[in-house]
Amino acid sequence: MADAAQTDWLVSLRRELHRRPEPSWCEFYTTARIVEQLREMPVDEILVGDEIHAKGERQGVPDEETQQLWLDRARETNVNNEILDQLASGYTGAIATIERGEGPTVALRVDIDGLPQQEADGQGHQPAEEGFRSVHEGHMHACGHDAHMTFGLGVLREFVDREFDGTLKVIFQPAEEVVGGGRPIAKSGHLDDVDALLASHIGLDTPTGEVVAGMGGFYAVSHLDASFEGEPAHAGAAPNQGANAVQAMATAVQNLYGIARHSDGATRVNAGKVAGGTASNIIAEDAYIQAEVRGETTELMTYTRERAVEVIESAAEMHDCTVDIEHGGEAPSAASDEAVADIVADVAETHSAVETVTPHDELGASEDATYLMNRVQEHGGVAAFVGIGTNHPDGHHTAAFDVDEPSLEVGVDVLSESIAHLFDTETGSN
Amino acid sequence: MADAAQTDWLVSLRRELHRRPEPSWCEFYTTARIVEQLREMPVDEILVGDEIHAKGERQGVPDEETQQLWLDRARETNVNNEILDQLASGYTGAIATIERGEGPTVALRVDIDGLPQQEADGQGHQPAEEGFRSVHEGHMHACGHDAHMTFGLGVLREFVDREFDGTLKVIFQPAEEVVGGGRPIAKSGHLDDVDALLASHIGLDTPTGEVVAGMGGFYAVSHLDASFEGEPAHAGAAPNQGANAVQAMATAVQNLYGIARHSDGATRVNAGKVAGGTASNIIAEDAYIQAEVRGETTELMTYTRERAVEVIESAAEMHDCTVDIEHGGEAPSAASDEAVADIVADVAETHSAVETVTPHDELGASEDATYLMNRVQEHGGVAAFVGIGTNHPDGHHTAAFDVDEPSLEVGVDVLSESIAHLFDTETGSN
Amino acid sequence: MADAAQTDWLVSLRRELHRRPEPSWCEFYTTARIVEQLREMPVDEILVGDEIHAKGERQGVPDEETQQLWLDRARETNVNNEILDQLASGYTGAIATIERGEGPTVALRVDIDGLPQQEADGQGHQPAEEGFRSVHEGHMHACGHDAHMTFGLGVLREFVDREFDGTLKVIFQPAEEVVGGGRPIAKSGHLDDVDALLASHIGLDTPTGEVVAGMGGFYAVSHLDASFEGEPAHAGAAPNQGANAVQAMATAVQNLYGIARHSDGATRVNAGKVAGGTASNIIAEDAYIQAEVRGETTELMTYTRERAVEVIESAAEMHDCTVDIEHGGEAPSAASDEAVADIVADVAETHSAVETVTPHDELGASEDATYLMNRVQEHGGVAAFVGIGTNHPDGHHTAAFDVDEPSLEVGVDVLSESIAHLFDTETGSN
Amino acid sequence: MADAAQTDWLVSLRRELHRRPEPSWCEFYTTARIVEQLREMPVDEILVGDEIHAKGERQGVPDEETQQLWLDRARETNVNNEILDQLASGYTGAIATIERGEGPTVALRVDIDGLPQQEADGQGHQPAEEGFRSVHEGHMHACGHDAHMTFGLGVLREFVDREFDGTLKVIFQPAEEVVGGGRPIAKSGHLDDVDALLASHIGLDTPTGEVVAGMGGFYAVSHLDASFEGEPAHAGAAPNQGANAVQAMATAVQNLYGIARHSDGATRVNAGKVAGGTASNIIAEDAYIQAEVRGETTELMTYTRERAVEVIESAAEMHDCTVDIEHGGEAPSAASDEAVADIVADVAETHSAVETVTPHDELGASEDATYLMNRVQEHGGVAAFVGIGTNHPDGHHTAAFDVDEPSLEVGVDVLSESIAHLFDTETGSN
Repeated sequence: MADAAQTDWLVSLRRELHRRPEPSWCEFYTTARIVEQLREMPVDEILVGDEIHAKGERQGVPDEETQQLWLDRARETNVNNEILDQLASGYTGAIATIERGEGPTVALRVDIDGLPQQEADGQGHQPAEEGFRSVHEGHMHACGHDAHMTFGLGVLREFVDREFDGTLKVIFQPAEEVVGGGRPIAKSGHLDDVDALLASHIGLDTPTGEVVAGMGGFYAVSHLDASFEGEPAHAGAAPNQGANAVQAMATAVQNLYGIARHSDGATRVNAGKVAGGTASNIIAEDAYIQAEVRGETTELMTYTRERAVEVIESAAEMHDCTVDIEHGGEAPSAASDEAVADIVADVAETHSAVETVTPHDELGASEDATYLMNRVQEHGGVAAFVGIGTNHPDGHHTAAFDVDEPSLEVGVDVLSESIAHLFDTETGSN
Repeated sequence: MADAAQTDWLVSLRRELHRRPEPSWCEFYTTARIVEQLREMPVDEILVGDEIHAKGERQGVPDEETQQLWLDRARETNVNNEILDQLASGYTGAIATIERGEGPTVALRVDIDGLPQQEADGQGHQPAEEGFRSVHEGHMHACGHDAHMTFGLGVLREFVDREFDGTLKVIFQPAEEVVGGGRPIAKSGHLDDVDALLASHIGLDTPTGEVVAGMGGFYAVSHLDASFEGEPAHAGAAPNQGANAVQAMATAVQNLYGIARHSDGATRVNAGKVAGGTASNIIAEDAYIQAEVRGETTELMTYTRERAVEVIESAAEMHDCTVDIEHGGEAPSAASDEAVADIVADVAETHSAVETVTPHDELGASEDATYLMNRVQEHGGVAAFVGIGTNHPDGHHTAAFDVDEPSLEVGVDVLSESIAHLFDTETGSN
Repeated sequence: MADAAQTDWLVSLRRELHRRPEPSWCEFYTTARIVEQLREMPVDEILVGDEIHAKGERQGVPDEETQQLWLDRARETNVNNEILDQLASGYTGAIATIERGEGPTVALRVDIDGLPQQEADGQGHQPAEEGFRSVHEGHMHACGHDAHMTFGLGVLREFVDREFDGTLKVIFQPAEEVVGGGRPIAKSGHLDDVDALLASHIGLDTPTGEVVAGMGGFYAVSHLDASFEGEPAHAGAAPNQGANAVQAMATAVQNLYGIARHSDGATRVNAGKVAGGTASNIIAEDAYIQAEVRGETTELMTYTRERAVEVIESAAEMHDCTVDIEHGGEAPSAASDEAVADIVADVAETHSAVETVTPHDELGASEDATYLMNRVQEHGGVAAFVGIGTNHPDGHHTAAFDVDEPSLEVGVDVLSESIAHLFDTETGSN
Repeated sequence: MADAAQTDWLVSLRRELHRRPEPSWCEFYTTARIVEQLREMPVDEILVGDEIHAKGERQGVPDEETQQLWLDRARETNVNNEILDQLASGYTGAIATIERGEGPTVALRVDIDGLPQQEADGQGHQPAEEGFRSVHEGHMHACGHDAHMTFGLGVLREFVDREFDGTLKVIFQPAEEVVGGGRPIAKSGHLDDVDALLASHIGLDTPTGEVVAGMGGFYAVSHLDASFEGEPAHAGAAPNQGANAVQAMATAVQNLYGIARHSDGATRVNAGKVAGGTASNIIAEDAYIQAEVRGETTELMTYTRERAVEVIESAAEMHDCTVDIEHGGEAPSAASDEAVADIVADVAETHSAVETVTPHDELGASEDATYLMNRVQEHGGVAAFVGIGTNHPDGHHTAAFDVDEPSLEVGVDVLSESIAHLFDTETGSN
């Protein structure tokens, strides 16, 4: 299937996208570049920004100032300004559709956002060595979404000139990292006619040459933003007149990590971003914790969240502070259908660059693709989450994360051929 | 002494300065406005920026980006750009001198920086109601340094047209809040010929109409900036692969406040500004604490600092993190000379607006005026720290802090007349 | 199988044993009562105390004073003093053997120790209502070992008069609760000729009428005793002269519970017993933590233990204390052989009081029966851990725990018949 | 004044009392030995046990079991059993009276209880080297009350054969260490006719040869006993079903020490004795903290106590526990009358072994002698708290504390002669 031109195109596309990672709900440049590519192919229909989302369902949206900052940065590049205008309301992402003859509707979902992680800059980090390191300091495609977008565009390019009976939708979903974009797309209705859905992730400690045909083990997840408010005071002259928000926050952090493990399965808790206070000589008036909780099941996540709320509220009370807890992005658990996984496994077995096919694996992490998978399954369709192995030098969400570029082609091929088979198969009931 | 014109001028000057608080070592606009006023009087000599500081002795200097930001903001106002050019090296503040006949050298030191404190904006807060609230959101003259500068300029205006035998120096010291500006001025040599030094502070829970002739009880203080570095990891998939800098920081905060009280006297510790992590789904790689420790004596401060370092280092180790501790601004203790305090007390007794004169009080806080007082005293001169009472609606370093403006005139009068007496007195040995 | 006499005997035996729970390695009365019962049957051989243990392999042995106290208490009852003399060296427990014709050696292991848990005393707690509540305040059979001993004696009574070809050993193992008795018995050699081993546990959230034929999911476990030593000081006059062991301990506890969850599976940590200090007006010189860590695998347990050691040592250092960590009882993981579980399942299916047979379940807890199972399996034998359901009103290790007495007969019957089948089967290779 | 016989008697008396330290409200042997000595002199009246206390006013009384244990130990010595019978109700201590002619009533108060502190046993610790180390392991006269009792008996022996006009009362007060015995004696009325009261303490970092004529700076103090109750659970199988009382306690301890220092003066907080849980494999159901708070003033103590209560209650809530806080012993502040201190100073000046007389010093600690001082002063009498210096090798409340025995004589002499002068002086108004 592979030819040198495809290979070059995929690599160059991935590198271009890698250079400009944008945080969740700020994928302005990214969406615009995707749309430019889609127009070039061209596909039959392109929906953009607020056309693909149910209103009022976004999760984890940053403040307007942040969105504006990234929109401004996008405007400083040479992407089409008119596309940026369509995104200016703060809804990002796109859905591309190719319609051919009568037949099933098959969808592929890929995610597009980067992470607030500084990228490595030393020897041995390929993006640094070969000149496509992130230009946005403190931000990075540290989870491989640059590869995912490349999968999506690569698959579409495969089908543009192909004959097939049915409809292909590729969903470029924003804000996966804050589990923010899955819900509004799921609730938009755009998936309700989908007979079979594939979603995909690269890496996840699976090496180049391995494919996981159907993943389960998605942790349910929920984000909590706790804002503590106390009383400031002069730290030297009158510390007792303060109500120390940093002390409340630190007490909460210590005890959040100490929430009891659960007999029914794995739980997680992380106080991933915290801050408080304004100067060393003022008793801190304000502090916050951006936390997340997870569970192997939604019940386990809920248990952890309830305990987290108790911990945070008691810590505030202990230090005479008030606290306001906002519940942010949240995603349920989900399962891959065996029928779809079997098709993917069969396809992968025949690929020359695939050495190992693992029928099933557990993710042990969260993904808001679960919203889309659940939606399709609830409407009688089928779904699978496909893992495409890649040798990554360091873990996901770390500075030295990178993808092994030969995996790009494997991903495009395996997903394309699986989709081709799905067009030929009576899988769902739609 | 007071006339209506002086009153109006003082109030309007203070309000103008109040509107543009600038953080320590970023007093660009502030210094420029002071210099413009000095030129208008005019005084005999004006030293600016790096002319008044010993090199390499500044403490608590912010990063260049921050300094540049504030310099840019100053350039957007209508202050003299050429003065700003003189400050661009990052040394702020000024010394004004009036030289008359043979006689002693008397100095007055006032400080000029604001605080990173959001200013109140509701009813009852005079700056908000009367339109001179801070234009820099998140920054505020919450410790009365706007009044202090007004004292300095007001005293100079008094002496410009007066006959006296001697030399008057007024030192507009930057960066008091980070105990950063006292040391480089003390070490510059500009104080070595000073026979008598006054420094002054408004408020400090002393009401309008009260003057404290000589303050002691300055806490020795030291700032510590601790930067923790751990390992990031995906918080859902592999929390055990991380080394959690936020957990280390929270453990340190909890235990810093728990450092044992000391039998020899008062100590203080504050983790006034902290932060860590980048996102809720990443185990935090970085965190920091901006802390300060104080003691009634330098020994007590040192005890607390040593314990703080142990706590911070052990907390890092506990969570497999490294930590780098930078020792920031530091100030010694000091004492007011009774001889000078007596002069101030005598002057204050005769002022019509002064109802109570307190010969001596304990500050119970820190001040890097102590560097200047110690320097003068070491060279055979004398010094006193004078408290000018003011009714302040809320505590120093809080959003609703304000000064009662009639105190401005009291301050200028008491300080001016005390200086006049000091010219007539054989106080020091210089 | 059941008759009224057997039923009465089992219930009365269990209640007698329930009344006198003894902590690990202090089962003096308990062992003596078991031996008295064994002599009455009689069995062919009875080994007691140090005859059944490898020397130097006990774990979790209490101090001599504690052992002496319980030995004295046992002497105050009417049990045979001569048996107590045999136990006075501090080795408890017994092995009973019935030898018949040529054939396999089949063993059953039951545990015999109680817990330091206060027993409930209110309405609705059957032992309290029917007069067999623990006479040792603060100690209780809160994990069903009274039922386990009854299983062991009941099975022996079944076989005393039966014809069979082989050898039956019943091991009354002490000190399971501190994972202390499994290792010395495993290393004694008494199991090396065993072809098939059954171990059993009642309850574990399985209701009356259910049998779990083969359990896995034993957590590896390790106990740590950390003793902190600081410096005492007068808490009012000179707190700074102390090194506060209670503060060190509290810091350790907070952070032990915060050890990161692991991607490879479940871990546990518990600071189950702590104490420190001597009086409210002395800075505490001493403190200790009796902790345990567990893991789904030995690797996960080791990870948690290594982190626990780091936490404890850093907490000591933070507060200028020293700490001594003693590693106490430890047990590996283990698995039930399917061949044995199948036999148990077949037997259980035919029992009139068994409604549900679960072929396999995961314990999610620890058991030092794993030492015995591993030993038998290493020597070519087979083993299974059998769960006998019982409706227990509250969780194991709590005050209101109790067993539903009809389960006693189910346990004796299912274990006896399984053993009978094992005599007829070529299972192991010994 | 001194003669060799007196010296020997004092030293031997002190050593005898040193060997048998008894905790607060358990001074059975101690009281009995004192009474035996008083009978031998003899004095005119001896009141014992419940004769000297107001009912219902004791603070910090241990449980009956503890009292019984110490009473049993006392019975095993050769003290008069009939005296022990008088103490069996749990009221300890004695008041001895010598009545001579008409004249003022002068009282001396000494305290008699030991501390739960293990005594040093190595070289260099005189009690160990010379055979009078505590026979009660874990208990020790680590605060010098053995010397205080010797003062009391020594002074009485001085006056038995002396002529004087007035009444001398020596109060042997129990339970000072738990600030427990001062209040019931103060409220008994036995002090209401006292014209002048002396109380005394040895050591306190004052060396042999120094006398402090009148001490102030008594910290107000209050004891809190917090009992946490959670839910037990199996730590391996179901940690989430527990409510962890040890975690609640550790959170409270961490935050108690972090209560903000106060601008008005010194505060103290100590979680001096804590414990929780029963076994490493059970989530702890129970835990407690025996804490104390102090303040330079009663207001400062109250501030600290209120914050402590908030911290403890929030920590319980955070971990789903309940907590019961019992307020234990409490003592106010007090001041020495200058008139009395002057008399003591004059006497001390003339003593050959006294090199330094300090008119006034601050204790910086707590003492329930303040109840007695306040009572006498409220009834128009005068009072002073006299410090008798002694070289002590290590701090009060530590294992190596000891008194320098030549100080015994100094104490007896200075107190006796001061009392003699007080008989000759019109001090109070009674």
